[in-house]
Amino acid sequence: MDEFAFIEKLRKRVPRSKHVLKGIGDDAAVLKGVGRGSLVIATDMLVEGVDFVLGKLSPEKIGRKALAVNLSDLAAMGAEPFVFVLSVGKPEYITVKWLDRFYDGMLKLAEECEIGCVGGDFSRSKEFSASVTVLGRAVDPVLRSGAKSGDYVGVTGVLGGSIRRHHYSFLPRLREGKFLAGAGRVNSMIDISDGLIQDLEHILHASGKTAELNLDLIPVSRDALALTSGRGAAALERALTDGEDFELLFTISAEGKTRIENGWKKRFPEVPLSWIGKISSGAPTVRYFSGGKRIALTHLRKKGYRHF
Amino acid sequence: MDEFAFIEKLRKRVPRSKHVLKGIGDDAAVLKGVGRGSLVIATDMLVEGVDFVLGKLSPEKIGRKALAVNLSDLAAMGAEPFVFVLSVGKPEYITVKWLDRFYDGMLKLAEECEIGCVGGDFSRSKEFSASVTVLGRAVDPVLRSGAKSGDYVGVTGVLGGSIRRHHYSFLPRLREGKFLAGAGRVNSMIDISDGLIQDLEHILHASGKTAELNLDLIPVSRDALALTSGRGAAALERALTDGEDFELLFTISAEGKTRIENGWKKRFPEVPLSWIGKISSGAPTVRYFSGGKRIALTHLRKKGYRHF
Repeated sequence: MDEFAFIEKLRKRVPRSKHVLKGIGDDAAVLKGVGRGSLVIATDMLVEGVDFVLGKLSPEKIGRKALAVNLSDLAAMGAEPFVFVLSVGKPEYITVKWLDRFYDGMLKLAEECEIGCVGGDFSRSKEFSASVTVLGRAVDPVLRSGAKSGDYVGVTGVLGGSIRRHHYSFLPRLREGKFLAGAGRVNSMIDISDGLIQDLEHILHASGKTAELNLDLIPVSRDALALTSGRGAAALERALTDGEDFELLFTISAEGKTRIENGWKKRFPEVPLSWIGKISSGAPTVRYFSGGKRIALTHLRKKGYRHF
Repeated sequence: MDEFAFIEKLRKRVPRSKHVLKGIGDDAAVLKGVGRGSLVIATDMLVEGVDFVLGKLSPEKIGRKALAVNLSDLAAMGAEPFVFVLSVGKPEYITVKWLDRFYDGMLKLAEECEIGCVGGDFSRSKEFSASVTVLGRAVDPVLRSGAKSGDYVGVTGVLGGSIRRHHYSFLPRLREGKFLAGAGRVNSMIDISDGLIQDLEHILHASGKTAELNLDLIPVSRDALALTSGRGAAALERALTDGEDFELLFTISAEGKTRIENGWKKRFPEVPLSWIGKISSGAPTVRYFSGGKRIALTHLRKKGYRHF
């Protein structure tokens, strides 16, 4: 199958979007009526052997994840995605059937999230890679840089051990992100991809603030406990440092905290919401507390996930 | 240098754009005031060993080309680009210095075209790849599918032999594309990346029309002549089939043709404009004419550039 036949096949399969005047099949895609507010753009690349091992993860799961990680970025802005484009590097050993299944996983998630694929590019390559760019909009996009002294630090879901399953099966927190940005009016937000501590540090560096983290309140996942044979300290360490939780980490004023708590359980009855610390003025570092006492956790700093 | 330091360095270097509320350094980029009209999106991927050979082309030229091919797609829509995002797959043998020079080439062209880089992703990989997505806007985007019977077929520049130099040094025809779409009101347009005949066929398939091409009027480049030792027939064959001319190929009514001719020489005195054929009703194929007679050119069909 050559490139043109493949694109034509893909074109027929992609979900429609009301914004798309012209999708796949021209020099560029054309969108109409994207509405007011800001345009929000995220891009992420998955590479075979770095982000996944062929054969260990099904093509459907790899395709789903390639899109999901980008949607998680948009969730962290409080943005609503509407379309995406995709570039694929295809080595010879990747069959058309494998690629079909990769798209199955990706397009199923696209349908669930009601977004369209409007373009892409294909190239021969030595290893499989997929680079996705997602566009969305937000009335009030939430940056990392807005954390204020006195803010509470909140986090959705449970953390750690995502390597077992969550890293490919997670549903991007788009609805939660939109609620936190809109009705919640959070001051800063990020999705946890590098690990709780590292991503909290991203907020602190961007905002020029200190965080005081209460280790007794960190929501540790069952996966983290399973991976550490139920040893609490080791599981907590995983919750603090494991990458790819794709939960939302945010900071918000005391009044905002009450506002969110009122609406959360009704809207998201199955999504845990935890208040794990507070923001104060000072150098951009995390101070750890447990049992009311400050403790040192310097060895964890070295464990964060680095890309290269 | 780790990912974060690298992104921080890049962030400081990228050209500013008035639309960018938040560029590199958050979960996603945020754009404001992108104006009316349609949003236009193009994406293209360059892979080492497929699109270029490391060592044969300088990093600056590779970086420039990775952006330029996308801008050429936007030019073919009559769109004005405003920002781009970039994903890079970086093997170990690519040094930070090489990558710096790659960005030099890319960002220099970005400055010339007054567009900003608002985000990106980096990953380790086995071979170097760069995937660029460009966003722009167009009041009246020109599709491939609008060709009408009676239209003239026009082409900018000269064709063939771009492998010598033009494929990395070309300036995307953004100004020309905007003029052709706006004041010119062309009916269909494409940029020549797969070769004149193949790209004309893309227009014909999308529009459901036939084209009659006058081979005596094809603008053959000096590079095509140099590569064929001045043999006219061989040079013409190159002009018809060589890829990566990145010229604009379009169709327009007879009145439109006059309209364009009136403005062209004043606006683009150094850019040749050639009328090479006409559109008629019928199956989506190209009929070739020379010396007023129809001729067969079937062997050329096999020479077009295919991506995989």
